[in-house]
Amino acid sequence: MTLQDTPANDHTVDAIVIGLGPGGEEVASRLARGGWSVLAVETHLVGGECPYYGCIPSKMMLHESRRPGASWPRVARRIREEATDDWDDAVAVERLTGTGARFVRGRAEVSGGPGGAPAPDGTGVTVTPDDGGPPQAWTARRAVVLNTGSEAVRIPVPGLPEAVAWTHRDVVTAEELPASLAVVGGGPLGCELAQALAGFGVRVTMLIRGDRLLPGETEEAGQLVAGRFRDDGIEVRTGTEITGVVSGEVSRYEANHGLPTPAGPVDLELSTGDRITVDRVLLATGRSPRDDVRVDDWCRVLDGAGEPVAGRFAVGDMTGAGPFTHTSMAQAAVVAGQLLGQGDARPFPRDAVPRVTYTDPEVAAVGLSERAARDGAGDGARDGAGEATAGRDTVRVARVDLASSSRGWIDEVSGHLTLVARGGGPEGVPVGEAGGGECTAQVLVGASVVGPQAGEILGALTVAVHARVPVAELARIPWAYPTLHRAIGDALGQLGTEA
Amino acid sequence: MTLQDTPANDHTVDAIVIGLGPGGEEVASRLARGGWSVLAVETHLVGGECPYYGCIPSKMMLHESRRPGASWPRVARRIREEATDDWDDAVAVERLTGTGARFVRGRAEVSGGPGGAPAPDGTGVTVTPDDGGPPQAWTARRAVVLNTGSEAVRIPVPGLPEAVAWTHRDVVTAEELPASLAVVGGGPLGCELAQALAGFGVRVTMLIRGDRLLPGETEEAGQLVAGRFRDDGIEVRTGTEITGVVSGEVSRYEANHGLPTPAGPVDLELSTGDRITVDRVLLATGRSPRDDVRVDDWCRVLDGAGEPVAGRFAVGDMTGAGPFTHTSMAQAAVVAGQLLGQGDARPFPRDAVPRVTYTDPEVAAVGLSERAARDGAGDGARDGAGEATAGRDTVRVARVDLASSSRGWIDEVSGHLTLVARGGGPEGVPVGEAGGGECTAQVLVGASVVGPQAGEILGALTVAVHARVPVAELARIPWAYPTLHRAIGDALGQLGTEA
Repeated sequence: MTLQDTPANDHTVDAIVIGLGPGGEEVASRLARGGWSVLAVETHLVGGECPYYGCIPSKMMLHESRRPGASWPRVARRIREEATDDWDDAVAVERLTGTGARFVRGRAEVSGGPGGAPAPDGTGVTVTPDDGGPPQAWTARRAVVLNTGSEAVRIPVPGLPEAVAWTHRDVVTAEELPASLAVVGGGPLGCELAQALAGFGVRVTMLIRGDRLLPGETEEAGQLVAGRFRDDGIEVRTGTEITGVVSGEVSRYEANHGLPTPAGPVDLELSTGDRITVDRVLLATGRSPRDDVRVDDWCRVLDGAGEPVAGRFAVGDMTGAGPFTHTSMAQAAVVAGQLLGQGDARPFPRDAVPRVTYTDPEVAAVGLSERAARDGAGDGARDGAGEATAGRDTVRVARVDLASSSRGWIDEVSGHLTLVARGGGPEGVPVGEAGGGECTAQVLVGASVVGPQAGEILGALTVAVHARVPVAELARIPWAYPTLHRAIGDALGQLGTEA
Repeated sequence: MTLQDTPANDHTVDAIVIGLGPGGEEVASRLARGGWSVLAVETHLVGGECPYYGCIPSKMMLHESRRPGASWPRVARRIREEATDDWDDAVAVERLTGTGARFVRGRAEVSGGPGGAPAPDGTGVTVTPDDGGPPQAWTARRAVVLNTGSEAVRIPVPGLPEAVAWTHRDVVTAEELPASLAVVGGGPLGCELAQALAGFGVRVTMLIRGDRLLPGETEEAGQLVAGRFRDDGIEVRTGTEITGVVSGEVSRYEANHGLPTPAGPVDLELSTGDRITVDRVLLATGRSPRDDVRVDDWCRVLDGAGEPVAGRFAVGDMTGAGPFTHTSMAQAAVVAGQLLGQGDARPFPRDAVPRVTYTDPEVAAVGLSERAARDGAGDGARDGAGEATAGRDTVRVARVDLASSSRGWIDEVSGHLTLVARGGGPEGVPVGEAGGGECTAQVLVGASVVGPQAGEILGALTVAVHARVPVAELARIPWAYPTLHRAIGDALGQLGTEA
């Protein structure tokens, strides 16, 4: 239904959801199924970045790149025809409207801005349809949920022809691959695409401003991935930026055949003084939110004074809780649970969010890093062997080299598993609050795994961190032998809970 | 130290451990490190079946069989030289005696038998060294721990030459592989070895008396593995037994070269009327305990009246709690924890034991099957859609086809994930004990996974079942997208805890 058909008095609904990535669509659908009248607005594709340009196509590429006889045309066709319906969201729109939600393709602006206070009868939202119709005034009686997401940061590279500068969207939609490509940026996206493209025979050079791959993960993780990349023929240049670009000529083949003239190759002048020639430059330099909001753990938008704005929520990348589909989906459940008055609604577990980079080896982590745990313990100081003591808390870290675990040895793998525990004393003696309050069992507050199947091993650690299972109880689990995740038991032993 | 050097008055110790598989060695080491005087007795290899003939070499074979250019000589050498030290346990003996335990290679017999009552001053044990020395009388003041394990059942096949009839030990120690082999038995061992050998080019035929592979797992698991086996060129013949054997001739090659005459090939007459020719027959028809004992969940041996015998324990295969290294190791911790008076000792979690068959696809399960859960709920009757009601309990089952999960679709996998939950009402309403007792949260009591990486996915389910994390809490976990284990979230949604 388009807005033109809608009588003006029909422009008041229970909730308006602005932006329909995975979380926005989930909230809109849950509320509509729960009996609310819902308007859902999106100017891009319903379903968001993940299915069309993000997680799904990138994992499809990685999967295909590891098959014997990896074929780009095969996966490109599968992405186009099976995964994205040629980047058409008709099925997603139908899925959404099938729940009873109304949908407008367009843009929406909240009266007073994302953090502005609502009027007494609800929140005003101006919706401007993409079909050229006039802006329309809508009112959300009970809630406005924001899910406007993030977009790729395109760092300026002076002199780089636009057709040479690719983002991940150009990779995902490419019918053919370039022979060579430079990747600018060493985060999860850059690493995944670099390895996938190398698997299809593209000559890949990574240009990293910093000193290592995956700067958000442990240093060892970055080193292990870099080592594998070298084995895969990927050149990793750290401490390197592009300082100049010299555009190349049109190839004779394309000129002779009257083909559309591709840009490139180009010569890149690097900050190291070197010069490399590549056909394309993939800019994988991060994402930034389209709108800035601050939220609390109930995903309520906070005003300038840090107070929740009545009936205003946000989910997804814009909340800064991790640019992950699973974050957005879980936040959607938090918001819908509150609004529908479901008894089992709980705050979003911001400290127990997992993440996986699907390179080979995989890099997976959940919850707090060692540093974050020590900071959270109120004292960053280290007290001897892997242990920090603070007023009321103790942080301990255990680490197992997967190569020395049974299965790791059998399968000749490289990798490691790290646990970060808090609470309890160094020898398992519970530490109470100052003044003799409640005792706190030692629990895992974070963990990371680098190695084959790390993403699946993370499942066990995600449950442990999320559910705060006491370390003493985890240590009694008869982990199946010889799985790789049995190394969790070895690491738990180091936390001092076993005899 | 040998017994001959030991003065007779030194034959009283705190504990005697009989049998040194993984669990026996673990108990002996823990007690010795805890300050106890310990005698450890083993006539076979210290460390047990697992490292020398079981889990480790079989997983090494599977790993090698899946590498490009899989080489039997390479893995046979690695098993011989690196894993088993040519089936020499000197290193393991040193590891054991390094803890302070004394070791005798020999056999031991408990006075009065495994379940016999101890004398007032301790339990008498007669130790007969393998080196020909005379039997010696020992006394265990505080405990005798039994870990005498199990051995392969060799079903009689009349007419089958001994050199043709192999057990898994013959496979593990083989320098060369036969060209063809029949596997009798479709359990985890038979399936793993069949797939490994097929990966090295052996023509494998499986002869299964029953109607499917992996009869201890779900029917779907057996079907999925059988389908893969057919793709691997393994012939699976169900409802089939060997009814007759016709020995073949010595090959001309071996006769001409004066080589040691191998047996085979042989013609096998089958109960179906067919006849097949194979070089070897692998008997993988299960294992049976060397000694019969009954134990409680504290691993205490029970007497004929079902009462614990003072200071008598058993761990490992002989306890019937699952013929797994991880069972034996966890039971060892239970026994050592009790004896050393460690505060965190708990009974062995017999209802939360995981198991994995490392075929491709992997077959993994933890805890109770649907049937066992329903039986445990006091009522095997089904009440409509996947739900059984009983006096005080409710069993619900959820199932997800991995192919329809995000990652499953991306990676084009086959498989499924099943959850078995108990407690709580059908709509999340807690069910109290009859008469209004305590409410019970719905928890997972069992789960199974079939598919790629199923053994690692099982880690998350093992934590959930072991720690009895409420289903409502599990359902709030933001499982990393798009892992395969995220299908757990989809399955939890079916249990009726989500909106």
